[in-house]
Amino acid sequence: MKTMGLARLHLVRPARFPDVEADAMASRATDVLETATVNATLAEALAETTFVVASTARMRDLSHEVLAPREAAARLVREAAAAPVALVFGAERTGLSAKEVNQCSVISTIPASPLYSSLNLAAAVQIFAYEVRLAATLPDSLPQALPPAASHEEVEHFYVHLEQTMVDTGFLDPDNPKRLMQRMRRLFARARLEKEEINILRGILAAARQERGRSP
Amino acid sequence: MKTMGLARLHLVRPARFPDVEADAMASRATDVLETATVNATLAEALAETTFVVASTARMRDLSHEVLAPREAAARLVREAAAAPVALVFGAERTGLSAKEVNQCSVISTIPASPLYSSLNLAAAVQIFAYEVRLAATLPDSLPQALPPAASHEEVEHFYVHLEQTMVDTGFLDPDNPKRLMQRMRRLFARARLEKEEINILRGILAAARQERGRSP
Repeated sequence: MKTMGLARLHLVRPARFPDVEADAMASRATDVLETATVNATLAEALAETTFVVASTARMRDLSHEVLAPREAAARLVREAAAAPVALVFGAERTGLSAKEVNQCSVISTIPASPLYSSLNLAAAVQIFAYEVRLAATLPDSLPQALPPAASHEEVEHFYVHLEQTMVDTGFLDPDNPKRLMQRMRRLFARARLEKEEINILRGILAAARQERGRSP
Repeated sequence: MKTMGLARLHLVRPARFPDVEADAMASRATDVLETATVNATLAEALAETTFVVASTARMRDLSHEVLAPREAAARLVREAAAAPVALVFGAERTGLSAKEVNQCSVISTIPASPLYSSLNLAAAVQIFAYEVRLAATLPDSLPQALPPAASHEEVEHFYVHLEQTMVDTGFLDPDNPKRLMQRMRRLFARARLEKEEINILRGILAAARQERGRSP
């Protein structure tokens, strides 16, 4: 991270932290560990972010948009001009769960040999950090001004509101939810919701409820 | 190396080889170690090559051309179509000597933070191997088959359905529509709606209406 100019490390439920072995391996980059935050959940770690890339090797059958690391890095740098962004990695052995990936905006997969595709975590972090550095220092990466994206928390609140409305109207059976919310997450993740759009969408949902309340 | 599809490792005067620790760390890539050659000199290792990239962080006042890793990888792949090429790395602590760099065709330096520029050997190898893989597998960089997009007509029917629901629930005043539908069009256009997503979205709208019909 530090060699590529990245400084902000957020850990989610680390097995051991701080840790003497980690400090020893960090060499002269212990400042990254010293300033790392520890979070109880991924959602907490991502609360302020507006664009989140999940690094995962596994292709899932119902997955988010999949970007090459180079493209993901360009998007991260562009979004980072306006608000915090994040790159999310799973643990060495287990990677990210489907539930964790669902909290992210896009998936990015490092191209690897089909004969032996399992990069270790350090290697994956190195490649993404390298691509982010290139994207951030490229002279021709025009930081196109985008309208303010909704924060992770705002988007999650919208999902809760949407799901509740779907349940209330009988469209979503809580006992047999199929993958409706997953589909909706994927759709809105692609769109990169803006703050004002969240307000409109939640306004539509609220109006549908009030209308129901009014009909006796 | 193996994750990026590279198989030929040539060692020059290794301190220990074969080595149980190396075998253990190689995980399921021990075939790369088993087929590695051991050379007495760098010149011997490079004998058959026609183009050699030296990976080095230090800028020397040598007259070698300095390429970015991406450019070096493209050159390596192009030259490799005709004859063997090589990427040369120095030992972890010492790097390459000036004499060794002088035996190479070009220098390539990984861009790094000026505050902390010392990548370890594994990280440097990973980045170069990744760039070589990308260069060797381009231009099919985006072979991702996208799910079928909804047709223009399907999307337009969804907009009609959405607008009608917004009017019915009192959220949209037909006499003062502001730019609500315009905002929604912009949002869903960005998302590139898929056929199945349209079905779900219209299902949600239909459920909201039926619910209202049932209420009185």
